[in-house]
Amino acid sequence: MSGGKHLATGSPKPEIPNDGKLRLYSMRFCPYAHRVHLVLDAKKIPYHSIFINLNDKPEWLTEYSPLGKVPALHLVKEEGKPALIESLVIAEYLDERYPEPKLFPSDPLKKAQDKILIERFNAVIGPMYKIFVNNEVPGAITDVSTGLDIFEKELRARGTPFFGGDKPGMLDYMIWPWCERSAMLKYLLGDKYEMDKERFEKLLKWRDLMGEDEAVKCFYLDGETHAKFMKTRREGKPNYDMLVNPSKRQRIC
Amino acid sequence: MSGGKHLATGSPKPEIPNDGKLRLYSMRFCPYAHRVHLVLDAKKIPYHSIFINLNDKPEWLTEYSPLGKVPALHLVKEEGKPALIESLVIAEYLDERYPEPKLFPSDPLKKAQDKILIERFNAVIGPMYKIFVNNEVPGAITDVSTGLDIFEKELRARGTPFFGGDKPGMLDYMIWPWCERSAMLKYLLGDKYEMDKERFEKLLKWRDLMGEDEAVKCFYLDGETHAKFMKTRREGKPNYDMLVNPSKRQRIC
Repeated sequence: MSGGKHLATGSPKPEIPNDGKLRLYSMRFCPYAHRVHLVLDAKKIPYHSIFINLNDKPEWLTEYSPLGKVPALHLVKEEGKPALIESLVIAEYLDERYPEPKLFPSDPLKKAQDKILIERFNAVIGPMYKIFVNNEVPGAITDVSTGLDIFEKELRARGTPFFGGDKPGMLDYMIWPWCERSAMLKYLLGDKYEMDKERFEKLLKWRDLMGEDEAVKCFYLDGETHAKFMKTRREGKPNYDMLVNPSKRQRIC
Repeated sequence: MSGGKHLATGSPKPEIPNDGKLRLYSMRFCPYAHRVHLVLDAKKIPYHSIFINLNDKPEWLTEYSPLGKVPALHLVKEEGKPALIESLVIAEYLDERYPEPKLFPSDPLKKAQDKILIERFNAVIGPMYKIFVNNEVPGAITDVSTGLDIFEKELRARGTPFFGGDKPGMLDYMIWPWCERSAMLKYLLGDKYEMDKERFEKLLKWRDLMGEDEAVKCFYLDGETHAKFMKTRREGKPNYDMLVNPSKRQRIC
């Protein structure tokens, strides 16, 4: 295991116990990898995390992830020890292979509708990252809000605290990484932006409730920490290892 | 029904018999919509096609497709008569809701691996459309070939005529629309490009076999016809209705 440190070019392969546990190649601040951590934690599937320096990748990464991206999930117990990539593909695989608790609806239509909403959340992710990374604010804030309107409307229509009902489901977890990161706006923009409490009444309640979820808590970082990392990324020197400090270590489930 | 004609701004909603059949909003030359035609035809699910002029969309399209895109599949028999968008979401929904014949592998791992290959085919689609639409040839041809190497290697490893085994499966159908359209290169580029017969031995055999498949034949157009449409698109005036001529009408299954 990498013990939280992000492995870079020249790093030998990590020594991982031969215990059959899944191995997740991740980056501590990557929202797509975050999706897979959430699904694994929600299902209480034991796994090893191997963190990767994405600016300076270890040579052996492509053995598990042909395009050198994270997340990649190495299935060491399956025949041929294959690895999977693409956060949504991995999430759905885990939901089929480890159905307890089931995160996608069992009904094919409801499942398809949730997948469409996951796709439509890309209309939030794009402008949100324009703000986070490029500090492009005015138009992007409008685009984020327009994108979120769909989710506010959907939560109202469903009449449940979570998109998944009484508990978070796959849609909740797939959009959560960016919702968690939205708390960094305050630190990046000062008080210039706050979510409209009436316009996003249900979503704001949902955000608070998600914060109490065990799987969310497992990999949670506060807005200030996300912002601190983002500032190093904006400067072109992402400090992947900024949490690798015993006194500030992220909580590990 | 639209009778093949592409409905444009100002067109009234088409009059479709109230027979409970699925309604597919499509465009005759759209490769993403083509994916859904293939799945519906492979499963012999009866449906109505409504063709849309994507340059000049009818006002009512957003009732079925909030972003005004095709494909959109209107499920008139389901409660609330919902519509689905996104070709891959629709394809997987149809595979779950109408499992005969099953197109994705039943094994979650094999299914995930096929989905990853569908995602990786985007590395072929991007440069292919640079050639089709923008006539950007040299680098794009190399990128297409590099992308296809993965599929050639995969077919060799599987040792079956189709990615799905002895018959086409979901992966075959999801990549087919672009493979069918690759036959237009000859008409767009002259003899400047031909696929390397050794490098792509298995893929070329696969392409011939796919051409014999009943579902493929249902919606098939030859390279010359695809190229003719593409030329009108290049000129900024896509002739959506170029096949709406009884003597040249596409075969309808």
